[in-house]
Amino acid sequence: MKIFTIEFEIDTQGNTDILDITGKVEEIIRSSDIETGICVLFTPSSTSSLTTIEFEPGCLEDLKRSFERIAPSTDRYAHNARWGDGNGHSHIRAALLGASVTIPIQNHRLTLGTWQQIILVDFDIRPRRRQVKVQLLGE
Amino acid sequence: MKIFTIEFEIDTQGNTDILDITGKVEEIIRSSDIETGICVLFTPSSTSSLTTIEFEPGCLEDLKRSFERIAPSTDRYAHNARWGDGNGHSHIRAALLGASVTIPIQNHRLTLGTWQQIILVDFDIRPRRRQVKVQLLGE
Amino acid sequence: MKIFTIEFEIDTQGNTDILDITGKVEEIIRSSDIETGICVLFTPSSTSSLTTIEFEPGCLEDLKRSFERIAPSTDRYAHNARWGDGNGHSHIRAALLGASVTIPIQNHRLTLGTWQQIILVDFDIRPRRRQVKVQLLGE
Repeated sequence: MKIFTIEFEIDTQGNTDILDITGKVEEIIRSSDIETGICVLFTPSSTSSLTTIEFEPGCLEDLKRSFERIAPSTDRYAHNARWGDGNGHSHIRAALLGASVTIPIQNHRLTLGTWQQIILVDFDIRPRRRQVKVQLLGE
Repeated sequence: MKIFTIEFEIDTQGNTDILDITGKVEEIIRSSDIETGICVLFTPSSTSSLTTIEFEPGCLEDLKRSFERIAPSTDRYAHNARWGDGNGHSHIRAALLGASVTIPIQNHRLTLGTWQQIILVDFDIRPRRRQVKVQLLGE
Repeated sequence: MKIFTIEFEIDTQGNTDILDITGKVEEIIRSSDIETGICVLFTPSSTSSLTTIEFEPGCLEDLKRSFERIAPSTDRYAHNARWGDGNGHSHIRAALLGASVTIPIQNHRLTLGTWQQIILVDFDIRPRRRQVKVQLLGE
Protein backbone atom coordinates (compact mmCIF):
# COMPACT_ATOMS: atom_id res chain seq x y z
CA MET A 1 0.00 0.00 0.00
CA LYS A 2 1.29 3.44 -0.93
CA ILE A 3 0.48 7.03 0.00
CA PHE A 4 0.59 9.95 -2.38
CA THR A 5 0.34 13.43 -0.79
CA ILE A 6 -0.09 16.66 -2.65
CA GLU A 7 -2.01 19.93 -2.52
CA PHE A 8 -3.06 22.50 -5.07
CA GLU A 9 -4.34 26.06 -5.00
CA ILE A 10 -7.31 27.64 -6.70
CA ASP A 11 -8.53 31.24 -6.87
CA THR A 12 -12.19 31.93 -6.10
CA GLN A 13 -14.55 34.90 -6.27
CA GLY A 14 -16.15 34.12 -2.88
CA ASN A 15 -19.91 34.60 -2.26
CA THR A 16 -20.76 30.91 -2.79
CA ASP A 17 -18.54 30.70 -5.86
CA ILE A 18 -18.60 27.10 -7.12
CA LEU A 19 -15.56 25.66 -8.89
CA ASP A 20 -15.15 22.33 -10.70
CA ILE A 21 -11.94 20.71 -9.41
CA THR A 22 -12.49 17.29 -11.05
CA GLY A 23 -9.95 17.79 -13.84
CA LYS A 24 -7.23 18.84 -11.42
CA VAL A 25 -7.87 15.84 -9.14
CA GLU A 26 -7.90 13.41 -12.08
CA GLU A 27 -4.61 14.88 -13.27
CA ILE A 28 -3.12 14.22 -9.82
CA ILE A 29 -4.31 10.61 -9.86
CA ARG A 30 -2.78 10.09 -13.30
CA SER A 31 0.54 11.51 -12.03
CA SER A 32 0.51 9.05 -9.11
CA ASP A 33 1.01 5.30 -9.35
CA ILE A 34 -2.19 4.46 -7.44
CA GLU A 35 -4.35 2.06 -9.47
CA THR A 36 -6.83 1.07 -6.74
CA GLY A 37 -7.63 2.84 -3.47
CA ILE A 38 -9.18 6.03 -2.18
CA CYS A 39 -8.83 9.75 -2.84
CA VAL A 40 -9.37 11.96 0.22
CA LEU A 41 -9.92 15.67 -0.51
CA PHE A 42 -9.96 18.28 2.24
CA THR A 43 -10.31 22.06 2.38
CA PRO A 44 -8.33 23.45 5.35
CA SER A 45 -10.78 26.29 5.89
CA SER A 46 -13.90 27.14 7.89
CA THR A 47 -15.66 29.08 5.10
CA SER A 48 -15.40 26.69 2.15
CA SER A 49 -16.60 23.15 1.44
CA LEU A 50 -16.30 20.20 -0.92
CA THR A 51 -19.06 18.05 -2.41
CA THR A 52 -20.17 16.55 -5.73
CA ILE A 53 -22.83 17.79 -8.17
CA GLU A 54 -23.69 17.84 -11.87
CA PHE A 55 -21.64 20.85 -12.88
CA GLU A 56 -24.02 22.71 -15.19
CA PRO A 57 -25.19 26.34 -14.80
CA GLY A 58 -28.72 25.43 -13.71
CA CYS A 59 -27.61 23.24 -10.80
CA LEU A 60 -25.05 25.85 -9.72
CA GLU A 61 -27.67 28.61 -9.63
CA ASP A 62 -30.06 26.30 -7.75
CA LEU A 63 -27.39 25.36 -5.19
CA LYS A 64 -26.60 29.02 -4.50
CA ARG A 65 -30.28 29.79 -4.03
CA SER A 66 -30.76 26.82 -1.75
CA PHE A 67 -28.04 28.14 0.57
CA GLU A 68 -29.89 31.46 0.72
CA ARG A 69 -32.82 29.46 2.09
CA ILE A 70 -30.77 27.34 4.53
CA ALA A 71 -28.52 30.10 5.91
CA PRO A 72 -29.58 33.46 4.43
CA SER A 73 -26.81 36.01 3.93
CA THR A 74 -29.25 38.70 5.09
CA ASP A 75 -29.90 37.15 8.53
CA ARG A 76 -28.35 38.39 11.75
CA TYR A 77 -25.42 36.26 12.89
CA ALA A 78 -23.82 36.26 16.33
CA HIS A 79 -20.46 35.74 14.60
CA ASN A 80 -20.88 39.07 12.80
CA ALA A 81 -21.98 40.84 15.97
CA ARG A 82 -18.81 39.67 17.74
CA TRP A 83 -16.24 40.09 14.99
CA GLY A 84 -17.85 42.51 12.53
CA ASP A 85 -16.58 40.60 9.51
CA GLY A 86 -19.91 39.88 7.82
CA ASN A 87 -19.26 36.22 6.93
CA GLY A 88 -21.39 34.57 9.63
CA HIS A 89 -23.49 32.80 7.01
CA SER A 90 -20.30 31.57 5.30
CA HIS A 91 -19.21 29.73 8.45
CA ILE A 92 -22.62 28.07 8.90
CA ARG A 93 -22.91 26.99 5.28
CA ALA A 94 -19.39 25.51 5.37
CA ALA A 95 -20.02 23.60 8.62
CA LEU A 96 -23.25 22.15 7.17
CA LEU A 97 -21.80 21.09 3.81
CA GLY A 98 -18.52 19.75 5.17
CA ALA A 99 -14.80 20.05 4.48
CA SER A 100 -13.99 16.65 2.98
CA VAL A 101 -15.03 14.12 0.37
CA THR A 102 -13.66 10.63 -0.15
CA ILE A 103 -13.89 8.92 -3.54
CA PRO A 104 -12.78 5.41 -4.52
CA ILE A 105 -10.12 4.97 -7.21
CA GLN A 106 -10.39 2.07 -9.66
CA ASN A 107 -8.32 1.46 -12.80
CA HIS A 108 -6.24 4.56 -12.01
CA ARG A 109 -9.39 6.77 -12.17
CA LEU A 110 -11.98 8.28 -9.83
CA THR A 111 -15.22 6.25 -9.76
CA LEU A 112 -17.41 9.32 -10.32
CA GLY A 113 -20.75 9.00 -12.11
CA THR A 114 -21.11 10.27 -15.67
CA TRP A 115 -22.82 13.50 -14.59
CA GLN A 116 -20.98 13.93 -11.28
CA GLN A 117 -18.20 16.44 -10.69
CA ILE A 118 -16.24 17.44 -7.58
CA ILE A 119 -16.76 21.04 -6.51
CA LEU A 120 -15.15 23.49 -4.11
CA VAL A 121 -17.72 25.98 -2.82
CA ASP A 122 -16.26 29.19 -1.42
CA PHE A 123 -18.79 30.72 0.98
CA ASP A 124 -16.59 33.61 2.11
CA ILE A 125 -17.62 37.14 1.11
CA ARG A 126 -14.50 38.09 -0.84
CA PRO A 127 -12.14 36.49 -3.37
CA ARG A 128 -9.79 33.96 -1.76
CA ARG A 129 -6.91 31.75 -2.79
CA ARG A 130 -7.89 28.30 -1.54
CA GLN A 131 -5.78 25.23 -0.94
CA VAL A 132 -7.08 21.70 -1.46
CA LYS A 133 -5.29 18.85 0.34
CA VAL A 134 -5.18 15.58 -1.61
CA GLN A 135 -4.27 12.27 0.01
CA LEU A 136 -4.29 9.11 -2.11
CA LEU A 137 -4.04 5.70 -0.40
CA GLY A 138 -3.83 2.50 -2.40
CA GLU A 139 -1.66 0.35 -4.59
CA MET B 1 -2.34 -3.41 4.55
CA LYS B 2 -4.81 -4.79 2.04
CA ILE B 3 -7.48 -3.36 -0.27
CA PHE B 4 -10.79 -5.02 -1.04
CA THR B 5 -12.80 -3.50 -3.91
CA ILE B 6 -16.33 -4.41 -4.81
CA GLU B 7 -19.62 -2.85 -5.87
CA PHE B 8 -23.24 -3.85 -5.66
CA GLU B 9 -26.49 -2.75 -7.25
CA ILE B 10 -29.81 -1.90 -5.70
CA ASP B 11 -33.19 -1.00 -7.21
CA THR B 12 -34.99 2.09 -5.92
CA GLN B 13 -38.38 3.72 -6.37
CA GLY B 14 -36.90 7.25 -6.61
CA ASN B 15 -38.66 10.29 -5.06
CA THR B 16 -36.48 10.29 -1.92
CA ASP B 17 -36.76 6.52 -1.55
CA ILE B 18 -34.63 5.46 1.45
CA LEU B 19 -33.01 2.02 1.47
CA ASP B 20 -31.14 0.24 4.27
CA ILE B 21 -27.86 -1.08 2.81
CA THR B 22 -26.27 -2.09 6.14
CA GLY B 23 -26.83 -5.83 5.73
CA LYS B 24 -25.28 -5.84 2.26
CA VAL B 25 -22.21 -3.91 3.44
CA GLU B 26 -21.75 -6.17 6.49
CA GLU B 27 -21.96 -9.21 4.20
CA ILE B 28 -19.18 -7.72 2.05
CA ILE B 29 -16.97 -7.14 5.10
CA ARG B 30 -17.52 -10.73 6.24
CA SER B 31 -16.53 -11.97 2.78
CA SER B 32 -13.29 -9.93 2.93
CA ASP B 33 -10.31 -10.66 5.17
CA ILE B 34 -10.19 -7.13 6.64
CA GLU B 35 -10.28 -7.27 10.44
CA THR B 36 -9.36 -3.63 11.15
CA GLY B 37 -9.53 -0.62 8.86
CA ILE B 38 -12.05 1.56 7.07
CA CYS B 39 -15.03 1.03 4.80
CA VAL B 40 -15.54 3.75 2.18
CA LEU B 41 -18.94 3.78 0.47
CA PHE B 42 -19.68 5.96 -2.55
CA THR B 43 -22.65 6.49 -4.85
CA PRO B 44 -21.43 7.39 -8.37
CA SER B 45 -24.44 9.58 -9.05
CA SER B 46 -25.52 13.22 -8.77
CA THR B 47 -29.10 12.49 -7.62
CA SER B 48 -28.54 10.03 -4.76
CA SER B 49 -26.71 10.14 -1.43
CA LEU B 50 -25.42 8.05 1.46
CA THR B 51 -25.73 8.75 5.20
CA THR B 52 -26.63 6.97 8.46
CA ILE B 53 -29.90 7.08 10.41
CA GLU B 54 -32.05 4.95 12.73
CA PHE B 55 -33.92 2.97 10.09
CA GLU B 56 -37.47 3.02 11.42
CA PRO B 57 -40.58 4.29 9.56
CA GLY B 58 -40.93 7.44 11.68
CA CYS B 59 -37.42 8.71 10.99
CA LEU B 60 -37.75 7.89 7.28
CA GLU B 61 -40.99 9.87 7.00
CA ASP B 62 -39.40 12.77 8.93
CA LEU B 63 -36.31 12.77 6.71
CA LYS B 64 -38.42 12.91 3.56
CA ARG B 65 -40.44 15.79 4.97
CA SER B 66 -37.31 17.65 6.03
CA PHE B 67 -36.02 17.56 2.44
CA GLU B 68 -39.31 19.10 1.30
CA ARG B 69 -38.44 22.00 3.61
CA ILE B 70 -34.77 22.26 2.58
CA ALA B 71 -35.22 21.89 -1.19
CA PRO B 72 -38.95 21.70 -2.01
CA SER B 73 -39.90 19.58 -5.01
CA THR B 74 -42.49 22.23 -5.89
CA ASP B 75 -39.99 25.11 -6.23
CA ARG B 76 -38.75 26.48 -9.53
CA TYR B 77 -35.28 25.21 -10.43
CA ALA B 78 -32.95 26.62 -13.07
CA HIS B 79 -31.86 23.05 -13.83
CA ASN B 80 -35.44 22.20 -14.83
CA ALA B 81 -35.80 25.36 -16.91
CA ARG B 82 -32.65 24.44 -18.86
CA TRP B 83 -33.12 20.69 -19.26
CA GLY B 84 -36.84 20.12 -18.70
CA ASP B 85 -36.22 16.96 -16.70
CA GLY B 86 -37.96 17.94 -13.46
CA ASN B 87 -35.30 16.66 -11.04
CA GLY B 88 -33.71 19.99 -10.06
CA HIS B 89 -34.53 19.41 -6.40
CA SER B 90 -32.97 15.93 -6.62
CA HIS B 91 -29.60 17.39 -7.62
CA ILE B 92 -29.65 19.95 -4.81
CA ARG B 93 -30.64 17.44 -2.13
CA ALA B 94 -27.92 15.04 -3.27
CA ALA B 95 -25.21 17.74 -3.28
CA LEU B 96 -26.21 18.80 0.24
CA LEU B 97 -26.33 15.30 1.76
CA GLY B 98 -23.21 14.00 0.03
CA ALA B 99 -22.13 10.98 -1.98
CA SER B 100 -19.87 9.17 0.48
CA VAL B 101 -19.62 7.82 4.02
CA THR B 102 -16.59 6.32 5.72
CA ILE B 103 -17.00 3.91 8.63
CA PRO B 104 -14.27 2.27 10.74
CA ILE B 105 -14.02 -1.55 10.80
CA GLN B 106 -13.06 -3.30 14.04
CA ASN B 107 -13.15 -7.03 14.78
CA HIS B 108 -14.23 -7.73 11.18
CA ARG B 109 -17.37 -5.58 11.67
CA LEU B 110 -18.60 -2.03 11.06
CA THR B 111 -18.45 0.11 14.20
CA LEU B 112 -22.03 1.37 13.78
CA GLY B 113 -24.11 2.32 16.82
CA THR B 114 -26.92 0.03 17.97
CA TRP B 115 -29.63 2.15 16.34
CA GLN B 116 -27.59 3.34 13.37
CA GLN B 117 -27.99 2.01 9.83
CA ILE B 118 -26.44 3.02 6.51
CA ILE B 119 -28.90 4.34 3.95
CA LEU B 120 -28.93 5.11 0.27
CA VAL B 121 -31.36 7.94 -0.49
CA ASP B 122 -32.51 8.14 -4.10
CA PHE B 123 -33.69 11.69 -4.81
CA ASP B 124 -34.38 11.17 -8.51
CA ILE B 125 -37.99 11.33 -9.68
CA ARG B 126 -38.25 7.84 -11.13
CA PRO B 127 -37.16 4.30 -10.23
CA ARG B 128 -33.44 3.73 -10.77
CA ARG B 129 -30.96 0.91 -10.52
CA ARG B 130 -28.16 2.31 -8.33
CA GLN B 131 -24.60 1.15 -7.88
CA VAL B 132 -22.72 1.48 -4.59
CA LYS B 133 -18.91 1.43 -4.69
CA VAL B 134 -17.28 -0.26 -1.68
CA GLN B 135 -13.59 0.16 -0.89
CA LEU B 136 -12.18 -1.56 2.21
CA LEU B 137 -8.68 -0.65 3.41
CA GLY B 138 -7.08 -2.41 6.36
CA GLU B 139 -5.50 -5.61 7.57
CA MET C 1 1.37 1.34 5.85
CA LYS C 2 0.13 1.11 9.42
CA ILE C 3 -3.22 1.31 11.19
CA PHE C 4 -3.78 2.91 14.57
CA THR C 5 -7.20 2.26 16.18
CA ILE C 6 -8.50 3.96 19.28
CA GLU C 7 -11.64 5.50 20.70
CA PHE C 8 -12.39 8.08 23.35
CA GLU C 9 -15.41 9.19 25.33
CA ILE C 10 -16.82 12.63 25.93
CA ASP C 11 -19.71 13.87 28.07
CA THR C 12 -22.25 16.19 26.49
CA GLN C 13 -25.24 18.25 27.62
CA GLY C 14 -27.38 17.24 24.62
CA ASN C 15 -29.74 19.74 22.91
CA THR C 16 -27.31 20.55 20.08
CA ASP C 17 -24.39 20.82 22.49
CA ILE C 18 -21.22 21.51 20.46
CA LEU C 19 -17.85 20.23 21.71
CA ASP C 20 -14.37 20.92 20.37
CA ILE C 21 -12.58 17.56 20.05
CA THR C 22 -9.55 18.86 18.11
CA GLY C 23 -7.13 18.74 21.05
CA LYS C 24 -8.05 15.16 21.88
CA VAL C 25 -7.61 14.03 18.26
CA GLU C 26 -4.26 15.82 17.94
CA GLU C 27 -3.10 14.13 21.15
CA ILE C 28 -4.01 10.74 19.64
CA ILE C 29 -2.05 11.49 16.47
CA ARG C 30 0.99 12.51 18.53
CA SER C 31 0.76 9.24 20.48
CA SER C 32 0.71 7.27 17.20
CA ASP C 33 3.64 6.85 14.82
CA ILE C 34 1.68 8.01 11.76
CA GLU C 35 3.53 10.85 10.00
CA THR C 36 1.49 10.92 6.77
CA GLY C 37 -1.95 9.52 6.07
CA ILE C 38 -5.57 10.05 7.02
CA CYS C 39 -7.55 10.39 10.23
CA VAL C 40 -11.09 8.96 10.08
CA LEU C 41 -13.43 10.02 12.89
CA PHE C 42 -16.83 8.42 13.40
CA THR C 43 -19.64 8.78 15.93
CA PRO C 44 -21.44 5.43 16.39
CA SER C 45 -24.76 7.10 17.06
CA SER C 46 -27.90 8.24 15.22
CA THR C 47 -28.38 11.48 17.21
CA SER C 48 -24.92 13.07 17.04
CA SER C 49 -22.63 14.26 14.24
CA LEU C 50 -19.11 15.38 13.41
CA THR C 51 -18.02 18.35 11.29
CA THR C 52 -15.56 21.25 11.33
CA ILE C 53 -16.16 24.92 12.20
CA GLU C 54 -14.41 27.96 13.66
CA PHE C 55 -14.95 27.19 17.33
CA GLU C 56 -15.96 30.60 18.71
CA PRO C 57 -19.17 31.44 20.62
CA GLY C 58 -20.76 33.39 17.76
CA CYS C 59 -20.47 30.54 15.24
CA LEU C 60 -21.73 28.03 17.81
CA GLU C 61 -24.82 30.12 18.54
CA ASP C 62 -25.42 30.61 14.81
CA LEU C 63 -25.08 26.87 14.11
CA LYS C 64 -27.62 26.02 16.81
CA ARG C 65 -30.06 28.57 15.42
CA SER C 66 -29.57 27.31 11.88
CA PHE C 67 -30.62 23.81 12.99
CA GLU C 68 -33.79 25.30 14.45
CA ARG C 69 -34.52 26.54 10.95
CA ILE C 70 -33.58 23.30 9.15
CA ALA C 71 -35.27 20.83 11.53
CA PRO C 72 -37.17 22.77 14.23
CA SER C 73 -37.37 21.10 17.64
CA THR C 74 -40.97 22.37 17.88
CA ASP C 75 -42.20 20.57 14.74
CA ARG C 76 -44.23 17.38 14.77
CA TYR C 77 -42.14 14.29 14.01
CA ALA C 78 -43.43 10.84 13.05
CA HIS C 79 -40.57 9.36 15.11
CA ASN C 80 -41.99 11.03 18.23
CA ALA C 81 -45.52 9.91 17.42
CA ARG C 82 -44.34 6.29 17.17
CA TRP C 83 -41.88 6.13 20.05
CA GLY C 84 -42.83 9.06 22.28
CA ASP C 85 -39.20 9.93 22.99
CA GLY C 86 -39.20 13.54 21.76
CA ASN C 87 -35.92 13.43 19.83
CA GLY C 88 -37.31 13.22 16.29
CA HIS C 89 -35.51 16.43 15.32
CA SER C 90 -32.25 15.02 16.75
CA HIS C 91 -32.33 12.08 14.34
CA ILE C 92 -33.00 14.30 11.33
CA ARG C 93 -30.28 16.80 12.20
CA ALA C 94 -27.77 13.97 12.72
CA ALA C 95 -28.63 12.26 9.42
CA LEU C 96 -28.24 15.58 7.56
CA LEU C 97 -24.91 16.60 9.13
CA GLY C 98 -23.34 13.13 9.02
CA ALA C 99 -21.49 10.76 11.32
CA SER C 100 -17.95 10.94 9.96
CA VAL C 101 -15.16 13.30 8.92
CA THR C 102 -11.86 12.40 7.28
CA ILE C 103 -8.83 14.67 7.61
CA PRO C 104 -5.39 14.27 6.05
CA ILE C 105 -2.33 13.95 8.32
CA GLN C 106 0.94 15.58 7.28
CA ASN C 107 4.10 15.99 9.36
CA HIS C 108 2.48 14.05 12.22
CA ARG C 109 -0.34 16.66 12.43
CA LEU C 110 -3.87 17.23 11.17
CA THR C 111 -3.98 19.55 8.13
CA LEU C 112 -6.73 21.74 9.61
CA GLY C 113 -6.93 25.42 8.72
CA THR C 114 -5.91 28.06 11.25
CA TRP C 115 -9.49 28.82 12.27
CA GLN C 116 -10.88 25.32 11.80
CA GLN C 117 -11.70 22.95 14.63
CA ILE C 118 -13.34 19.51 14.74
CA ILE C 119 -16.64 19.38 16.59
CA LEU C 120 -18.97 16.74 17.95
CA VAL C 121 -22.57 17.99 17.91
CA ASP C 122 -24.92 16.15 20.24
CA PHE C 123 -28.49 16.61 18.99
CA ASP C 124 -30.12 14.34 21.56
CA ILE C 125 -32.42 15.96 24.15
CA ARG C 126 -30.54 14.90 27.27
CA PRO C 127 -26.93 14.63 28.46
CA ARG C 128 -25.10 11.66 26.92
CA ARG C 129 -21.72 10.01 27.17
CA ARG C 130 -20.52 9.80 23.57
CA GLN C 131 -17.85 7.64 22.02
CA VAL C 132 -15.71 8.77 19.09
CA LYS C 133 -14.02 6.11 16.96
CA VAL C 134 -10.62 7.12 15.59
CA GLN C 135 -8.91 5.21 12.79
CA LEU C 136 -5.53 6.42 11.53
CA LEU C 137 -4.10 4.96 8.31
CA GLY C 138 -0.66 5.93 7.06
CA GLU C 139 3.05 5.56 7.58
